[in-house]
Amino acid sequence: MTNTQVTLVQIDNYGPWTVTPEPRREADLQTLQSRLYADVSQFVGARDGYVFFTRFDNMIAVTNGLDLDDHRLLQESVGNRYPVSLSLGVAADPDPVEALSEATELVQDAGSAQDRNRREILGGEVAEGTGGEDVGIAHFDVNDATGEYTDELNAFDSFIEIEQAYAELMRYMRTAHRSLSFFVGGDNIIAVCPELGEDAYHDAIAHVEEDVGVALKVGVGSGSSAHAAGMDAKHALEICRAEETRIEFSR
Amino acid sequence: MTNTQVTLVQIDNYGPWTVTPEPRREADLQTLQSRLYADVSQFVGARDGYVFFTRFDNMIAVTNGLDLDDHRLLQESVGNRYPVSLSLGVAADPDPVEALSEATELVQDAGSAQDRNRREILGGEVAEGTGGEDVGIAHFDVNDATGEYTDELNAFDSFIEIEQAYAELMRYMRTAHRSLSFFVGGDNIIAVCPELGEDAYHDAIAHVEEDVGVALKVGVGSGSSAHAAGMDAKHALEICRAEETRIEFSR
Amino acid sequence: MTNTQVTLVQIDNYGPWTVTPEPRREADLQTLQSRLYADVSQFVGARDGYVFFTRFDNMIAVTNGLDLDDHRLLQESVGNRYPVSLSLGVAADPDPVEALSEATELVQDAGSAQDRNRREILGGEVAEGTGGEDVGIAHFDVNDATGEYTDELNAFDSFIEIEQAYAELMRYMRTAHRSLSFFVGGDNIIAVCPELGEDAYHDAIAHVEEDVGVALKVGVGSGSSAHAAGMDAKHALEICRAEETRIEFSR
Amino acid sequence: MTNTQVTLVQIDNYGPWTVTPEPRREADLQTLQSRLYADVSQFVGARDGYVFFTRFDNMIAVTNGLDLDDHRLLQESVGNRYPVSLSLGVAADPDPVEALSEATELVQDAGSAQDRNRREILGGEVAEGTGGEDVGIAHFDVNDATGEYTDELNAFDSFIEIEQAYAELMRYMRTAHRSLSFFVGGDNIIAVCPELGEDAYHDAIAHVEEDVGVALKVGVGSGSSAHAAGMDAKHALEICRAEETRIEFSR
Repeated sequence: MTNTQVTLVQIDNYGPWTVTPEPRREADLQTLQSRLYADVSQFVGARDGYVFFTRFDNMIAVTNGLDLDDHRLLQESVGNRYPVSLSLGVAADPDPVEALSEATELVQDAGSAQDRNRREILGGEVAEGTGGEDVGIAHFDVNDATGEYTDELNAFDSFIEIEQAYAELMRYMRTAHRSLSFFVGGDNIIAVCPELGEDAYHDAIAHVEEDVGVALKVGVGSGSSAHAAGMDAKHALEICRAEETRIEFSR
Repeated sequence: MTNTQVTLVQIDNYGPWTVTPEPRREADLQTLQSRLYADVSQFVGARDGYVFFTRFDNMIAVTNGLDLDDHRLLQESVGNRYPVSLSLGVAADPDPVEALSEATELVQDAGSAQDRNRREILGGEVAEGTGGEDVGIAHFDVNDATGEYTDELNAFDSFIEIEQAYAELMRYMRTAHRSLSFFVGGDNIIAVCPELGEDAYHDAIAHVEEDVGVALKVGVGSGSSAHAAGMDAKHALEICRAEETRIEFSR
Repeated sequence: MTNTQVTLVQIDNYGPWTVTPEPRREADLQTLQSRLYADVSQFVGARDGYVFFTRFDNMIAVTNGLDLDDHRLLQESVGNRYPVSLSLGVAADPDPVEALSEATELVQDAGSAQDRNRREILGGEVAEGTGGEDVGIAHFDVNDATGEYTDELNAFDSFIEIEQAYAELMRYMRTAHRSLSFFVGGDNIIAVCPELGEDAYHDAIAHVEEDVGVALKVGVGSGSSAHAAGMDAKHALEICRAEETRIEFSR
Repeated sequence: MTNTQVTLVQIDNYGPWTVTPEPRREADLQTLQSRLYADVSQFVGARDGYVFFTRFDNMIAVTNGLDLDDHRLLQESVGNRYPVSLSLGVAADPDPVEALSEATELVQDAGSAQDRNRREILGGEVAEGTGGEDVGIAHFDVNDATGEYTDELNAFDSFIEIEQAYAELMRYMRTAHRSLSFFVGGDNIIAVCPELGEDAYHDAIAHVEEDVGVALKVGVGSGSSAHAAGMDAKHALEICRAEETRIEFSR
């Protein structure tokens, strides 16, 4: 059984900051957001977690293996180097959606995302590592995205296809299979999942193909950390590529 | 009449690189992609252009005011500092979709995105600046996103709402109004548009609200560069906020 | 005759900030400083200028070709993305030392580097580009540094040799030849010079060799920008390497 | 008794890379070097170590608390994100100079810094943490540097004073007191020291004042990591500032 530790990373009072005293240059906001994400990703990634950029002002991370001191250090380090600060909520649960809900509440309960007096909240409890398969990761990509889309359509029309597939998959995996799915660039989507059988993945892929006409394949892995599970999933996806299959589980 | 100059920025042979010789750590790929995007954004933004991260391996930029030497310098500088290289296609047209199509073809004609021998393509022609309103930018956001979603739902369910709105808006603005719309973080979507009247924006907002139940508002600006038009649009959006209107044009 | 435009880049009130309310983590300060330098270097470098990290809280740049609007944009962009702000003084003179003195005074006259009310000063006048040889750059390195030092001594003792050579060269070039010399990493020192003949470089190299026993060689270039002059100097230094000479002028 | 673990971080074959096939833009090299340093500093700093930029192509780190797996991960992550790779040598010894010498030899024995076939060496042994005072840090700065230099002299002449003080201190602390001293920006020098009494610091400060006329003060700390010792030293230096003393030991 999985026991996924999820961290909500929320920039404090970011919306108002972006337009105070005047709207700031968009290129600077984009640079700030993407570099902040990169730094959080390096910090968490070096401890075998995953961070997803999501909305950038609200990032979602899988942080099994990071304790509250690690979270505190991340918060301090960002506070030392950026003009904005972070609030962090942490929770663990066999159900990733439930973990995220608890992590979100910890931050929401301390005040609004646009409350200028709510700063650098740090709340929650970390998972006791079981050393077992606490995290499940499914790595999807689009079948022959380069041949079907990138090399054929204009770059926006390719992106529309991928985006429609993502929007549908994220919604379906959330409601039907209690999984959190994130677009991670290219034609890749990574989902944080509870234990699911092959039929669940078959169902999700079929649903997206019927609904928006985009063919996905998926490699599934599990492990004691997001990185361990994710590498398993990547290798399983390589097997899909090599053997032209649509669903592979690691081992 | 607009004359939007669009640049397609494509990482050469990126997909194969990410899994050679073995799949690379996801956190490193995420860091690499987002920092590369940040650098391109700073370079183009300092010349008053906009870059959208799109798929990260394919970024779309509005580059009025940048000439081919500027593009060449960006390419050289990235080549000096990253383990990957960029191909760039540039084209200008009153219709942003047409401009992007031409820019994409310039890159596609030189080889596949996964052709290991296609490197650092630079092609296209830049717009003669007219000094007029060459670029149209519409800046959308979600009405009371913080109160309705961020402070109420868990962070993923908030994101689902925004993502569904984006997926629908991007598709509708592309097909009905020949505009390129990009999610830029938070609850913000920036669209690059030809000259459109208020009815077009009204139509798009109504369509999204009917289709996915998310209420958007929009500020619209125009100018000689993406930055100039975008700042107009941001100021117009501030007026929407202050006066609780849904569509504002600058001036 | 050269006409070097020099910009002093000073972080506002940095010293006090680093210890308020408590001393901040050294690793964060080092990261902040070096990334800020990198960003300033990219901004100025993309306009064919050079920036030297110097003390990091005070950086010195050669900015021929950048006008005051460029400086203002740099200041705004840094202010949007960092927890610290920059003051900038700009001046041009045939004598680089004189240009720097004027640039420094513009900042000093507005208040102390540790005055918490002095923020984002921007002062000075930019050079009228002559299109001629406004900038002179000399690129020094240590003769066979790898064979003599890096591969032989421990890494600190190698560094001592290079550092002693730099400390002596910087002082001597400043007083004897009105040049500003900067260590730029490895075994490289770049000097911003007025027009100097071969005898001046011969004198400086001989002085360092006598005083601290380190053998330097130098390539000298000139051009309308730091980049143009610096590339000339690099190519001249390559000739020194190929032909085992100690001083080469470009062309 | 201290037991300092030192890591030599050497960029593989960097010198030749910077001029192949042609000399690369200086601004790009500066950006690459300083960002690479920042990344190494964040990685090591998040594990309570210190990294000094030194020559940039050869960085010296105090890495008590980091094991070989941590070093391997740093190497892999840099290899995934930069066009250059790192070799690492690690050693621990009560004498920091001896530790560095051993760390350097591990890298040198595997080949020259300019050997194109020597890549990503990782060698050495890590210290068994004693939980005691394994690291000694002395944090020096220049007495009233802002009042005496920064606000009075031009920015280069201020820098000359600080640089002369650094060059003399680094050499003297190395030979007389077996310490490794590093300029860290502003008017700050951080030394990694074995156990030294107050007389040693008095001697060093007096030596620099006599030799180059610059007055230093110093805070001294010790701890189980560079960060712990360094924070002690920073607090001790704050006491020097408050009480106008020249040498303070923590506690």
